[in-house]
Amino acid sequence: MDIPALLTSAGMNIGISVGMFTLYSILRKQPLNVKVYFGQRIAQGRTRNENLCFERFAPSASWILKAWQATEEDIFASGGIDAVVFLRIVVFSIRIFAIATILCTFLVLPLNYFGEGMVGIEDPTAMDLLTIGNVREGSRWLWAHCFTLYVISACACTLLYFEYENVARMRTEQVQRFPTRPSNFTVVVRGIPWSSIESYSESVGKFFSNYYASSYISHQIVYRFGAVQQLMEDAEKMYKVMTTVPVMATIPDKQCCEPNAERCGLCGAGAGSNSFKKIDGGSTFANRNVNDELREKECEAALVFFRSRFDALVVSQTIQSADPMLWVTELAPEPLDVFWQNLCVPYNLLWIRKISVFIASIVFSVLFLLPTTFVQGLTKIQYLQNAFPFLRRVSDRSYINLITGYLPSLVLTVFLTIVPPLMMLFSTLEGRVSRSTRKRSACVKVLIFMFWNVYFSNILSGSWIERMGKLTVTSPKDLATLLAELIPRQASFFMTYVMTSGWSGLTFELLQPVPLVGNWLFKCVLMKEDDFVRPMTFSFHTEVTRVLLFGLLGFTFCILAPLILPFLLVYFCFAFLVYRNQIMNVYYVKYQTDGSYWTLAHNATIFSLILTQVVAGILFGMKKSSTASTCTIPLIICTALFNVFCKNRFLPLF
Amino acid sequence: MDIPALLTSAGMNIGISVGMFTLYSILRKQPLNVKVYFGQRIAQGRTRNENLCFERFAPSASWILKAWQATEEDIFASGGIDAVVFLRIVVFSIRIFAIATILCTFLVLPLNYFGEGMVGIEDPTAMDLLTIGNVREGSRWLWAHCFTLYVISACACTLLYFEYENVARMRTEQVQRFPTRPSNFTVVVRGIPWSSIESYSESVGKFFSNYYASSYISHQIVYRFGAVQQLMEDAEKMYKVMTTVPVMATIPDKQCCEPNAERCGLCGAGAGSNSFKKIDGGSTFANRNVNDELREKECEAALVFFRSRFDALVVSQTIQSADPMLWVTELAPEPLDVFWQNLCVPYNLLWIRKISVFIASIVFSVLFLLPTTFVQGLTKIQYLQNAFPFLRRVSDRSYINLITGYLPSLVLTVFLTIVPPLMMLFSTLEGRVSRSTRKRSACVKVLIFMFWNVYFSNILSGSWIERMGKLTVTSPKDLATLLAELIPRQASFFMTYVMTSGWSGLTFELLQPVPLVGNWLFKCVLMKEDDFVRPMTFSFHTEVTRVLLFGLLGFTFCILAPLILPFLLVYFCFAFLVYRNQIMNVYYVKYQTDGSYWTLAHNATIFSLILTQVVAGILFGMKKSSTASTCTIPLIICTALFNVFCKNRFLPLF
Repeated sequence: MDIPALLTSAGMNIGISVGMFTLYSILRKQPLNVKVYFGQRIAQGRTRNENLCFERFAPSASWILKAWQATEEDIFASGGIDAVVFLRIVVFSIRIFAIATILCTFLVLPLNYFGEGMVGIEDPTAMDLLTIGNVREGSRWLWAHCFTLYVISACACTLLYFEYENVARMRTEQVQRFPTRPSNFTVVVRGIPWSSIESYSESVGKFFSNYYASSYISHQIVYRFGAVQQLMEDAEKMYKVMTTVPVMATIPDKQCCEPNAERCGLCGAGAGSNSFKKIDGGSTFANRNVNDELREKECEAALVFFRSRFDALVVSQTIQSADPMLWVTELAPEPLDVFWQNLCVPYNLLWIRKISVFIASIVFSVLFLLPTTFVQGLTKIQYLQNAFPFLRRVSDRSYINLITGYLPSLVLTVFLTIVPPLMMLFSTLEGRVSRSTRKRSACVKVLIFMFWNVYFSNILSGSWIERMGKLTVTSPKDLATLLAELIPRQASFFMTYVMTSGWSGLTFELLQPVPLVGNWLFKCVLMKEDDFVRPMTFSFHTEVTRVLLFGLLGFTFCILAPLILPFLLVYFCFAFLVYRNQIMNVYYVKYQTDGSYWTLAHNATIFSLILTQVVAGILFGMKKSSTASTCTIPLIICTALFNVFCKNRFLPLF
Repeated sequence: MDIPALLTSAGMNIGISVGMFTLYSILRKQPLNVKVYFGQRIAQGRTRNENLCFERFAPSASWILKAWQATEEDIFASGGIDAVVFLRIVVFSIRIFAIATILCTFLVLPLNYFGEGMVGIEDPTAMDLLTIGNVREGSRWLWAHCFTLYVISACACTLLYFEYENVARMRTEQVQRFPTRPSNFTVVVRGIPWSSIESYSESVGKFFSNYYASSYISHQIVYRFGAVQQLMEDAEKMYKVMTTVPVMATIPDKQCCEPNAERCGLCGAGAGSNSFKKIDGGSTFANRNVNDELREKECEAALVFFRSRFDALVVSQTIQSADPMLWVTELAPEPLDVFWQNLCVPYNLLWIRKISVFIASIVFSVLFLLPTTFVQGLTKIQYLQNAFPFLRRVSDRSYINLITGYLPSLVLTVFLTIVPPLMMLFSTLEGRVSRSTRKRSACVKVLIFMFWNVYFSNILSGSWIERMGKLTVTSPKDLATLLAELIPRQASFFMTYVMTSGWSGLTFELLQPVPLVGNWLFKCVLMKEDDFVRPMTFSFHTEVTRVLLFGLLGFTFCILAPLILPFLLVYFCFAFLVYRNQIMNVYYVKYQTDGSYWTLAHNATIFSLILTQVVAGILFGMKKSSTASTCTIPLIICTALFNVFCKNRFLPLF
């Protein structure tokens, strides 16, 4: 790919982005779309009064201003701690890549361009002249690259440390902020042993009143076939009928982050579990033997309520039985966070499910090499002309720039849309009992998938095509050398990827096309009164991953092919504004992980840094600058030590 | 190496072993050596009355009978739970290798011998004819190998499961057996924050009486420069003078496994810490400001005593501070188990020490390739003749069988003797606060070292010499193929290693040459009254490792070169008798890990099994028996699943 292809891609993406932004600024003012763009405000009972005037149809940038002016307290009030942490990740990226952009554009880029390393080589593409590949062997200017690497690593570690400290502080403050969270008083018990003489409920009651007599209050067994959900929904409907107020509006304005404990009876007092019985008594089961009916539906899982947070914590961290697969305890999730259907999965099966999911993930990753190779085939279409002569006609056409520049990253982005839902399904199958841990687990899976399948496999398959299958890796050292040689060559593809997946992705995030069109169809075509759009939770597993993937791209390319950095910086700045807007207006907070996404971001950043340093070290070696190469070794060691220190210092709090 | 060399080695080792056993049966009856061979009895205050008669100088096998007749209760009484677990590992090895020997000798060995795979090859050595290398390609008899592999794996997993269950039960019984262990009521606190206004002791007192008012009793700060040890030794001397009874005799007969709590004031009541102050008051410090003196010597570590085991456990598992590197708590070791000098290591430095030790271990492992290659050079001396012509003279001599057969494994065994002390030093530097965890950590290190440096590097360096440096590994698949090809070829070397390190090693263990000669020099030459021999603790880190290494050899060679199995079985049977004798007579129990060596044995066995299966699968593939090769895949998966199941089922108890 060369400059015209890159420019085509940039043009396409800038055009799409500007168009979408303009469209958004108009659409958001239409009353029809208020549920699409202001889901959270609706949920909080706040409404907007818009009059039919000219301003409604004029594009404006007022939302950008509002997003910019919002304080961290506003974000916390609208999106909870996870949203704040996510925006801290974006801010961290902006800071570090601003530093990197300045350093690399004014120091590394000119050195690369005037490096004269490709003087002897025929027909170097313009893009290659800007990479480290153009620095000639043994050049003394490689010291500048090494210095830049040191500065960037030092800044990244410093910023990481302060952010980690900040997030850890916020996380501990959460405990003080919500002293009466029901989850802090409740323990989930799984693997209750089966007994022929008594029901699970009786077993649980006996066990805990025997061993924790002073702190145990009561318990609630979980029922199969969604009995609990059914009861909850019934109660909710009754409540709705009686008050004729939308359910979402019952959540108080300022406590939106704190789930409403009274709604499902997990408040730690006995009242919750009694209320279930009352409803049972008055239902159609009344004349039958309700106990027998219920006993059949009992799962081997229960929620147990304790008098104090300390008691619940102690119970949750103690092994209760000589067989550690019986009476397994852990702190319960918040009421709205519980993923009921997984509570009924027998605890014995969990490890098998986890292993199956692990294997399935690997198989899926391997299968995904096919679309990746296809995408790289599009980028390197000129290399395929010998094998497939019919492609020669294509490459003469005027739209070749579109095919090699814009299409590949579009195809990849489209293929990648199936990944997050699939990983979410995997995480569900793993048997997580809370929605928040399920989402976090999906996030880990998507992250590893993206790092492997977008980054490494694109680099490797791209070079495999360039060399027409003659890619033999004969030792780990070869692999590292190969990476060092290939990463700079893939820079232009990743630049287009940043634009397509990053810039255009942001506009899609902003515009919410699926709910928008769905809402429009529902209201204007089908003429239904029900809402198509329900308030959504923020999909951290896709967005955190995307930001971290761009971080990886930024770090690894920063000194090898610095031209990618301005594109990334633009992405991060827009991401900051767009996500702030979305978090404050669109998404609804149902559950939180108390900032545990930061650990992922930290690990991903450290991984990116060390990869960068290793690749740079090898490249310096290949350029015969052995001192610069040796100088990266202490840097790698220091980064690894810093990581271990942070693990010791902060991780126990997460 | 061929049959004569192997026979030379066998002859040497059998001769040495029989001689040593005879010598031992005489030496153990001499009153001079009673402290060498009956250290434990002396420690328990029991003595033997031997008269000067003919029987004292006649070899006898009575000790074998006694060792055989001892029950598990006897072992438990003499050696504690760790000794029982160690002997369970030996018994497990005897059982599984008895099955393997029967199957392989009567099924696999004849098939290998009549396999006709080496018909076309010139001059196959007799040893090679007995390995799987002699089965011709595509032979249907490979099914028998596959079947044997299945039977051995199934038996190993079944036996492992029951042993794990057994050990886990013993471990939980320990808690009931010793309800008043001081360690269960005591918590070690490290990383006490420094304060300019109060001493560490005051900080600890304030902290725990503030947060754990109901359960906290008192605390004892740890002092630098061995102040505590000094005080203890003073107290011990005083006690000795006053009672004129040997200190060791104060340990009651049946409670030898239960450290005597009163001796160092960790009994959970305040008395312990008060007694220190009394001694201080009466010492030479009396006229100075004792408090200032002591405060300077305070470490940032303390022992805190609680009212109940539950309270201590809860405190030990709770994060005490928002900075997890301050107020770090863990359950204290038993009084005799505490490694005092490491308690004074600042907690902040521990992670750096651990990383340094990790790096040092890797460096040492790499350096150890030199002696390994030298050893393999001795075995393959005929391959080196081209490069070093002067060796040709050597290979014509009559002692060539000694050089290729006996010498290599002797040299390796001698080099390996420096490994356990070095790893123990590494574990000390890591900053473990108890002797038992230090020894267990050393055991892990030695185990990994042995598996890597004795097993893999011998196999690889051996083949490197055979091919005169033309050993290129070009992919992970190549490495596996290489292993599958090379492992059978190293069988004869490992047979001699089993004899030298195993058989002769056992006789050395029995004879205890160093204490024996030392004791003799001290008593008869230097005419000293003091004892040279002090009661020793059993060195689990060398012996567990040796048994597990032989297990690895047994599993990986069982279907490839089954001739090694009888040698191993003889070793394990003798090991059973010798170790029982030594545990009951020689070693003294100072501290225990409550059976945590079993987890090591389990992991090592699973590793050996899976390695065996992988290598066998590849070999079947190389022999063009693709069905047999495919059949090993479910076996590998089942073994891995079994391991995960055991981890879930039993590991939380350890």
